[in-house]
Amino acid sequence: MVVELISVGTEILLGNIVNTNAAYLSEQCALLGLSLYFETAVGDNEKRLEETLRTALGRSDIVILSGGLGPTQDDLTKETAARVMGKRLVLDEHSKARIEEYFQNSQNGQITENNWKQAMVPEGCIVVDNQNGTAPGIIIEEGEKAVILLPGPPGELKPMFERAIYPYLNEKRPETICSVMVKMCGVGESAAETKIKDLIDAQTNPTIATYAKTGEVHLRVTASAKDEKEAKKLIKPVLKELRNRFGSCIYTADENVTLEKAVIDMLRERELTLTTAESITGGMLAARLTDVPGASEVFKQGLVTYCNRAKRKLLDVKKTTLKDYGAVSEKTAKEMAKNGAFITGSDICLSLTGIAGPDAAEDKPVGLVYIACSYNGKVTVQEYHLKGERAKIRESAVVKALTLLRECIMADGH
Amino acid sequence: MVVELISVGTEILLGNIVNTNAAYLSEQCALLGLSLYFETAVGDNEKRLEETLRTALGRSDIVILSGGLGPTQDDLTKETAARVMGKRLVLDEHSKARIEEYFQNSQNGQITENNWKQAMVPEGCIVVDNQNGTAPGIIIEEGEKAVILLPGPPGELKPMFERAIYPYLNEKRPETICSVMVKMCGVGESAAETKIKDLIDAQTNPTIATYAKTGEVHLRVTASAKDEKEAKKLIKPVLKELRNRFGSCIYTADENVTLEKAVIDMLRERELTLTTAESITGGMLAARLTDVPGASEVFKQGLVTYCNRAKRKLLDVKKTTLKDYGAVSEKTAKEMAKNGAFITGSDICLSLTGIAGPDAAEDKPVGLVYIACSYNGKVTVQEYHLKGERAKIRESAVVKALTLLRECIMADGH
Repeated sequence: MVVELISVGTEILLGNIVNTNAAYLSEQCALLGLSLYFETAVGDNEKRLEETLRTALGRSDIVILSGGLGPTQDDLTKETAARVMGKRLVLDEHSKARIEEYFQNSQNGQITENNWKQAMVPEGCIVVDNQNGTAPGIIIEEGEKAVILLPGPPGELKPMFERAIYPYLNEKRPETICSVMVKMCGVGESAAETKIKDLIDAQTNPTIATYAKTGEVHLRVTASAKDEKEAKKLIKPVLKELRNRFGSCIYTADENVTLEKAVIDMLRERELTLTTAESITGGMLAARLTDVPGASEVFKQGLVTYCNRAKRKLLDVKKTTLKDYGAVSEKTAKEMAKNGAFITGSDICLSLTGIAGPDAAEDKPVGLVYIACSYNGKVTVQEYHLKGERAKIRESAVVKALTLLRECIMADGH
Repeated sequence: MVVELISVGTEILLGNIVNTNAAYLSEQCALLGLSLYFETAVGDNEKRLEETLRTALGRSDIVILSGGLGPTQDDLTKETAARVMGKRLVLDEHSKARIEEYFQNSQNGQITENNWKQAMVPEGCIVVDNQNGTAPGIIIEEGEKAVILLPGPPGELKPMFERAIYPYLNEKRPETICSVMVKMCGVGESAAETKIKDLIDAQTNPTIATYAKTGEVHLRVTASAKDEKEAKKLIKPVLKELRNRFGSCIYTADENVTLEKAVIDMLRERELTLTTAESITGGMLAARLTDVPGASEVFKQGLVTYCNRAKRKLLDVKKTTLKDYGAVSEKTAKEMAKNGAFITGSDICLSLTGIAGPDAAEDKPVGLVYIACSYNGKVTVQEYHLKGERAKIRESAVVKALTLLRECIMADGH
């Protein structure tokens, strides 16, 4: 089954927004095992939208349009799609009632005459409730073809797709698709690919796809079967094999778990507390840890010691260490971690010091980073040579720190 | 002049990457005053790429293709474009020499036979040097039409576009386009639009376009004239009028200056030092300040006091304050800022405490945030009710803190 995407909105053509909807919908279609050959972005222009939709329907089975379902005159996706599919627009009482209800919540502003436009739908279509806005989603079926209309705001499109469109598309497939995302740190992309080249070369069902993220590698394992239970049964031995090959590099097989969440969970289970002592990353590590709801159970405080004086004053790094070895040195990283844990009374302290650039410093190159982990009094320190620009180096350093922390805890045998 | 974009790459259709190139190129075309009606993404497939390119050439003057210029067999953008434009591929000695040079730097790996493919170019084309990779950019002109090929990696595409393609397109226009980005904080999008509605309604040349960012509003002023000097002359009175209306809400009229950079510059000029004391944002404010190269001149350290004990121990917040008013209170924010400045010996301390969610706490709602700024001993505190999910609330809080800091310094009359 071939699917095609059309993103509608002049703001895309003007470059005012990055089209993340297209990336999301593409990934979902890939997950569903649907073929996707073309994606088009077109403005809020009736003629060009009609041309694009007719071309898409000529070569694809299902066309998903996003955007242009708003209440204003500019928004004409629904009107155009209905005309191309040969359908009249009729009032949908259910959608009308939902819009009224939405505006009864005074936070959502005043209802205007325009809003009723959003309750008009192509006759005989499937109406999909919008739980985060007023524009309903719409599925128009005609013969073997289907046109799906989704609202443009990602906060409306994504939940609607997950709840109603994914199951609709999955239903249309002869088989059910199931997938698991295996996330790893501490292993490079090409090393990971080499390690499973035989599996990838021999794969039919399930398949394995590799995704490189900063400092991480994700593997999506996808199986197709007559039902979910069968698909999961197919995935199980592959997961086991991946665990055999990558061991503790795998930090989760749950799509929704981030590395920082996995680390926080690990600390929580072991009832360990963590402090950060950051120089090069200037608070990024702490910020990332506190992205996780409930981080406060294990992460109580962090210190950003950006200048030498702060390293001395807040972390008791020795004056002679800074003088003889420099702020970017194994010795400074060690003292930061050791003293950080002691001063705050935490079980663990992660410290980072390095050169993010753009300029080198202390006669040391951009990208040189030392990360230390003090864990129950024992300090492990690593030297890294990170690539890229300032922002990339800082981001990589944060991932390396989280990875080192995991390794230290696991080396402890827990 | 009508331009059209084609992004080539199966990784786009699989949703592995977000197509930021398309957003960048769209914005640049808008800046140049070029009309852009269609953007298509297509995989590394000869037949479908050819179909897409022929359609584009049928309705647009200039077609910009990005991606598919790599050294492997999969990459076929150049071969397809040459065939559609009726050109043979010939060896470009200049590009060959550049590729050799690139690989002489051993960091770039070993040269392989494949790499010479990248030195083949359509006969009679304009070759554009790639200063960040091995695939040259290519401009094929034929009659009134032009096809421009750019490498896919953003780190290669953007610098090449800026250096060579922007001037090439600008040259093709009958007039020159010039634009200035005016960036503001402390004013909402709809308030900003209302304030300049008369200017927008009456605009012809220059034009003003509004962009909403988290906690900020950006206005792009664009003028068209026979040369750059004339265009700048047209922009000048509009800038002056915007400064009249928005006053100190405008923090820069320089595209490349971020709010954190403007704040760092402001502190540097006044020789002021800054400390952060973060609870809700958990290091995000410090991380954002240290995104700016050279931030260390004014930002020496930051404290992340995520739990109450850390607020007491690191910032001397009174036990009775936390008990009687709670961690999320005006009084706690004030003490955090005042004590943070005193303890670190900084001129300024910004503190943030609030409830990011997902759950409410202390019987206070998600989104309630207090931000205090201690400046030369005087403490200003503000209460905010921020909307959105956890990440959005935290990001908004950081922008509010930077905005409050600007206001406090400016209120001081400097």
